[in-house]
Amino acid sequence: MNQDSTERIVTALSDWIAHAAPGARLPSNRALMARHGASPVTVQKAMRRLAALGLIESRPGVGTFTRAGRTARAADYGWQTAALGTPPARMPVLSSTQRTVAPDAIALHSGYPAPELLPERLVRQALGRAARRNTAVLRSPAAGSPDLQAWFAGELASAAPVGVTPASARDSLIIAGSQSGLSSIFRAVVGVGQPLLIESPTYWGAILAAAQAGVELVPVPAGPEGPDPEAVARAFAESGARGFYAQPSFANPTGAVWPEATRSAVLELVRRNGAFLIEDDWAHDLAIDAAPRPIAAEDEDGHVIYLRSLTKSVSPALRVAAVIARGPARDRILADRAAESMYVSGLLQAAVLDVVTQPAWRTHLRGLREQLRARRDLLLDALREHAPTATVETVPRGGLNLWVRLPDGSDAEQVVRECAARGVVLAPGSEWFPAEPSGAFVRLNYSGEGPERFPEAAGVLGDVLSGS
Amino acid sequence: MNQDSTERIVTALSDWIAHAAPGARLPSNRALMARHGASPVTVQKAMRRLAALGLIESRPGVGTFTRAGRTARAADYGWQTAALGTPPARMPVLSSTQRTVAPDAIALHSGYPAPELLPERLVRQALGRAARRNTAVLRSPAAGSPDLQAWFAGELASAAPVGVTPASARDSLIIAGSQSGLSSIFRAVVGVGQPLLIESPTYWGAILAAAQAGVELVPVPAGPEGPDPEAVARAFAESGARGFYAQPSFANPTGAVWPEATRSAVLELVRRNGAFLIEDDWAHDLAIDAAPRPIAAEDEDGHVIYLRSLTKSVSPALRVAAVIARGPARDRILADRAAESMYVSGLLQAAVLDVVTQPAWRTHLRGLREQLRARRDLLLDALREHAPTATVETVPRGGLNLWVRLPDGSDAEQVVRECAARGVVLAPGSEWFPAEPSGAFVRLNYSGEGPERFPEAAGVLGDVLSGS
Repeated sequence: MNQDSTERIVTALSDWIAHAAPGARLPSNRALMARHGASPVTVQKAMRRLAALGLIESRPGVGTFTRAGRTARAADYGWQTAALGTPPARMPVLSSTQRTVAPDAIALHSGYPAPELLPERLVRQALGRAARRNTAVLRSPAAGSPDLQAWFAGELASAAPVGVTPASARDSLIIAGSQSGLSSIFRAVVGVGQPLLIESPTYWGAILAAAQAGVELVPVPAGPEGPDPEAVARAFAESGARGFYAQPSFANPTGAVWPEATRSAVLELVRRNGAFLIEDDWAHDLAIDAAPRPIAAEDEDGHVIYLRSLTKSVSPALRVAAVIARGPARDRILADRAAESMYVSGLLQAAVLDVVTQPAWRTHLRGLREQLRARRDLLLDALREHAPTATVETVPRGGLNLWVRLPDGSDAEQVVRECAARGVVLAPGSEWFPAEPSGAFVRLNYSGEGPERFPEAAGVLGDVLSGS
Repeated sequence: MNQDSTERIVTALSDWIAHAAPGARLPSNRALMARHGASPVTVQKAMRRLAALGLIESRPGVGTFTRAGRTARAADYGWQTAALGTPPARMPVLSSTQRTVAPDAIALHSGYPAPELLPERLVRQALGRAARRNTAVLRSPAAGSPDLQAWFAGELASAAPVGVTPASARDSLIIAGSQSGLSSIFRAVVGVGQPLLIESPTYWGAILAAAQAGVELVPVPAGPEGPDPEAVARAFAESGARGFYAQPSFANPTGAVWPEATRSAVLELVRRNGAFLIEDDWAHDLAIDAAPRPIAAEDEDGHVIYLRSLTKSVSPALRVAAVIARGPARDRILADRAAESMYVSGLLQAAVLDVVTQPAWRTHLRGLREQLRARRDLLLDALREHAPTATVETVPRGGLNLWVRLPDGSDAEQVVRECAARGVVLAPGSEWFPAEPSGAFVRLNYSGEGPERFPEAAGVLGDVLSGS
């Protein structure tokens, strides 16, 4: 199709321009027609797109040139220092998990699975259908599309024991990814200067959202079996906190799954303390050796605020998640979301719902489980063979990551830097600790990089650790 | 196609189920095959989709039924009252502009244009293309897609006078709609408990975002010519504020465009006070009788923080906007956005960029201008004829709304209620005032409803105002 040849030329020339000097002359239209086997109309269309993108400018009678940057004078924004004052909290813009790396590096640092682990065909088809429906041009309600609300509520209800009244569709609020949910929950339910219990180590994004909301974190140590309920009880008593943020299933980064006794003890503790458990079920669709079992399904007094995202299992581009909460907490979270962003694109909501209600979605999840298991085991094997001094305390029963303890006395940041210099990108464990790290750790994602590169990566880590 | 007949049956049955009692028996598969001229496979596929949506359950050997609600016990979330405490500010979840109304009502209350005023074909094509590209399965950087950043920066740069260094692509941060931008700017640049000047009346969403961020609003009266610079100077001096939120072009709700003298005086005032002008250019693409002229294009010291959204001109489903800011302010806003929501769907960014770089986009904007002008004038004529005691001080030179003053002594809320009872939905003016309203106003959107209904709507308003 003509449209596609235009796009092809636009893409090729954008690449060329990216590497050309500002003011460089573009090949003539005639040369472009020859090179791309395209008609004059197609080439002209491509040039108009590039001009609209601000990449080129044509000087009639002379030729077409990459756009020369205007000569910028050095700006001094020093006056802003007085207007802005000291920042309320040290907030890094980027976690090391979000770093862009050289294309030939072995990337084990990111928090996302590789595109080949996503239901790519379902996503593209669903988007195509959503583009043809009214969802392409309409607003969504603030709480989300009622169908998608019902789906999230139904997923949780399907895990509810007999006799427990499950949360309703109305209790399920659609948000643009779980980070938005964390921010709203911390602002609306915890509040500035208020204490919040949090596992240590835990998801860095939750630590970041808490810093932004001005929440005071109270770390509770969490090992391969999650937190010790006695420690949770003490932390509630000492801090007077009204909330506990936790990942009871396949915790990020440790992979821990809370045993039954911990689940019921913590649920009892939040009830007794008139508090909320903020349950982040981030890896619900990323289970490997254990079924996901949301604690929220066992709560009927509104003590559990539940977060589930589809960003990592459907597609990072379909940024959709839900908060399920009941009572006044639900109303406050919704009011905060509405003030923060009004509503979530109904198109993304329609596409996500389409994907997860196709029969092929269940098939995909079964296949994903096998692939995650194989990748996890390959990385474990590679570490055992090539980096024997690095240890993995918990073999994760779900999720995307290995939490690797380095030998005593290691400097994790230094190890990460040396691995990076040899082309292997890891994430330093310190980012997952709300206070000082309890040891030297690195986090390795086994779902983002091709498993054929795991031995090489483990070899580099082993060499760095042995100082060779 | 088979897929489409499945979807047709799903849609038809969803409607039927919405009106059926829980536990009602569905028509037999045979009856459905006959009614929809569909194959058994197609009908079974539709039933599986409905089951996946949680709408039906089948009892083998008996039939298929709408899902019976579980018997819910009455829940008491009273314990949450102690945990949550008093809310920090009265935050309504919904403005009356977001209300859903009966399908036969005449709706002049909403803030959005009708789908027929959107570039629907371009939007659908762009989404189709974005669905086929890698953007469907990849994450976007926190600051946005570099191409789209460059486009927003280029738009502003094209309005920069000679000698002014325009903001760069890096200064342009992509956000999911301008409400998110307001929230981040108020949190990161103004701060809890700090004063912020704001026009009165002004956009209700800005008042809401300020309440959420805990910002103290300092109202500055704004008439048909915007604010009086002397009043702005006094408000800066008295409050010590470091920021002024304003809509200098086609202000919502009044439609005011600041004259040249006000533009340069306010820019000089923010410079002299070491302060920020937060310029919300919400109606950039909705100009009618005057060209949009961003003040930000004349700033080179980082005093203007600029907001531009494509939500109302491209599609409410492609929720994409940009904040353009420089220096440390830019860094703080980006850090706040990253903590709040990490990143914006790259798919929506790709689709929006595709739309606004097509040659047909310019053609669309020219046509939109004519349609907005015609609709505005038709509503003005209808009011003059049928509701002569309602007055419009400023004929808006852009935007979507008429700001209508009711006769002295009217109770705007009461008028709105009486009109609603007669099938005409208006928005009461009080929502646009940061403090007490300065008079009885209603806001009428001329872009959402079919103009053939304007005389009837104006007739109802006239009758209500004359008490007949």
